[in-house]
Amino acid sequence: MASGAHPGEAPSPLLVFETLWGYQRSAALRAAIELDVFRAVGEGPGDVASLARQCSASERGLRILCDYLTIIGLLSKEAGRYRHTPTSAMFLDPRSPACVASTARFLGNPAISEPFQHLADIVRSGRTTLAGQGSVEPENPVWVEFAHSMAPMMAPMCGPLGSIVLEGLAGPIRVLDIAAGHGLFGIEVAKQNPDARVDAVDWAPVLEVARTNARKAGVEDRYDMISGSAFEVDYGGPYDIVLLTNFLHHFDPPTCIALLKKVHTALKPGARAAALEFVPNDDRVSPPLAAGFSLTMLASTASGDAYTFRELESMYREAGFERISAHPVPTGPHTVVVGHAA
Amino acid sequence: MASGAHPGEAPSPLLVFETLWGYQRSAALRAAIELDVFRAVGEGPGDVASLARQCSASERGLRILCDYLTIIGLLSKEAGRYRHTPTSAMFLDPRSPACVASTARFLGNPAISEPFQHLADIVRSGRTTLAGQGSVEPENPVWVEFAHSMAPMMAPMCGPLGSIVLEGLAGPIRVLDIAAGHGLFGIEVAKQNPDARVDAVDWAPVLEVARTNARKAGVEDRYDMISGSAFEVDYGGPYDIVLLTNFLHHFDPPTCIALLKKVHTALKPGARAAALEFVPNDDRVSPPLAAGFSLTMLASTASGDAYTFRELESMYREAGFERISAHPVPTGPHTVVVGHAA
Repeated sequence: MASGAHPGEAPSPLLVFETLWGYQRSAALRAAIELDVFRAVGEGPGDVASLARQCSASERGLRILCDYLTIIGLLSKEAGRYRHTPTSAMFLDPRSPACVASTARFLGNPAISEPFQHLADIVRSGRTTLAGQGSVEPENPVWVEFAHSMAPMMAPMCGPLGSIVLEGLAGPIRVLDIAAGHGLFGIEVAKQNPDARVDAVDWAPVLEVARTNARKAGVEDRYDMISGSAFEVDYGGPYDIVLLTNFLHHFDPPTCIALLKKVHTALKPGARAAALEFVPNDDRVSPPLAAGFSLTMLASTASGDAYTFRELESMYREAGFERISAHPVPTGPHTVVVGHAA
Repeated sequence: MASGAHPGEAPSPLLVFETLWGYQRSAALRAAIELDVFRAVGEGPGDVASLARQCSASERGLRILCDYLTIIGLLSKEAGRYRHTPTSAMFLDPRSPACVASTARFLGNPAISEPFQHLADIVRSGRTTLAGQGSVEPENPVWVEFAHSMAPMMAPMCGPLGSIVLEGLAGPIRVLDIAAGHGLFGIEVAKQNPDARVDAVDWAPVLEVARTNARKAGVEDRYDMISGSAFEVDYGGPYDIVLLTNFLHHFDPPTCIALLKKVHTALKPGARAAALEFVPNDDRVSPPLAAGFSLTMLASTASGDAYTFRELESMYREAGFERISAHPVPTGPHTVVVGHAA
């Protein structure tokens, strides 16, 4: 059966209107996070007057916002009182350790969302309307925001990624974490292997966030930093593991291959390069979150994409890697693609 | 069971991320409509190169956009070719008489969508960030856009509305169509009753659209216009039917009651006032489209709302109406609320 085809489906304009109004869902959730509505709902008692007081908001506004959040499944309502759904309790109440509310700051950042106002122009030209290389323009401050606010989305994937890249490796190893961002992935490897040393590459202001996280995790003494562009800095090495998390999708295949070749020269023979990526199936329309990520790359970069495993495998091979394998991360929409230096 | 509650539901961050990315769905559909992608898909053959040529767009952009439309259920894809789903064929291909693509121009109009950029501020203050009375500020040009582009959303509801308001009425009647917009509702009444005369009230530039539609429908000789504010103009009369379509929701109850009282004075005894409205259930969180419309009124007006039948009934009563009844329209998200002049 064709992907996206629904042969038995009756035509309905509802999906069209819900899609045209989709921006309202994003706006409602962002507003609720900004107003700290999910904390107030968790604290109770959940009636409109109390919530309006807790959030310093009008009763009219608060009532309509909470009704809307209920309609889209992010709150529940009973006898005029709003309560958490299982999802909002775990992922939106700031008192929950799994809360991902901070990701709204990056996902709603104008550097990421603004180009969608000009999407028709972007489809015409085939590249972002942002200046230069778009979101990957050197020293773009959006990556400091990423490092600060996206950690809660990435955190659940750290454990599985660490296990995948460390499998069969023990004792003293050296790890290079390219485009480290919040640093959580490299830090996790250092936590899982107490003899691992990590070198993190990113823009200097971003590395400040990673350094703070390394300190919190107690691995600061095995954590070093190389500030600058991953395409320009000297990596040093040789390394046992190179991490490339959420990075390759910003660039076209020739650029990815050039980078992977540079990575290859910094690896010990047989060492591994691990990319954490949104990897769609060959049909490019499934699974939804990984495949849909292409649109973000279209909107915010000059030539990035969400690459299929076949495409990534071919880039790895061309850069001199072998034994290339895909490991879907069970706790997130990402896949870890591992290649070994020949 | 509480509305929106999903006691057995496992918590999942997916709904959170899909909601934060909801604006991308709107942007993708708007871009596709602007680029005439749905016409090109309907004409075939549907491969990326052909579509890019037909839409004067880049192949990269077109491919990623069509993949995304497939992911969100608005196209299908098989062996690299894009085809219509039943919904896109009927409601998005401009060659279909039921096409609603033009509604994107109103629903994406900055006067409607821009306030959602400031939704937290709006919830704080309880009113739109738009100047004055927001979308219902006198002579707001957005209503000319509404009259031009929203007709395809309203057209399927005209027939049922005409039958509801004309039930049991025959022979020469006079109809007042308040905030006529595209004029389709009054025109439909004139079509169903060849002895009906219609007076349409709206801002002059909006009435030009209604006049054109009356001419196309062949009822121009029974169609007159009263240009100006529904709150200020002299309605004349007395009328057998007054239509108030998509109007009351822009105002607070006292304003609605004042308007209904004015309407009452223009009616024959026993005559009917019919409001076409988004009418949520008493829980205010169902059905989704009608209940969710409150957020649009919060964002774009000073004090409007989607009113429950109970609330509308109470306004009608206070304005002197009796025998008030609700008639859900089977072909749309709206309900017709009819009251009779005492």
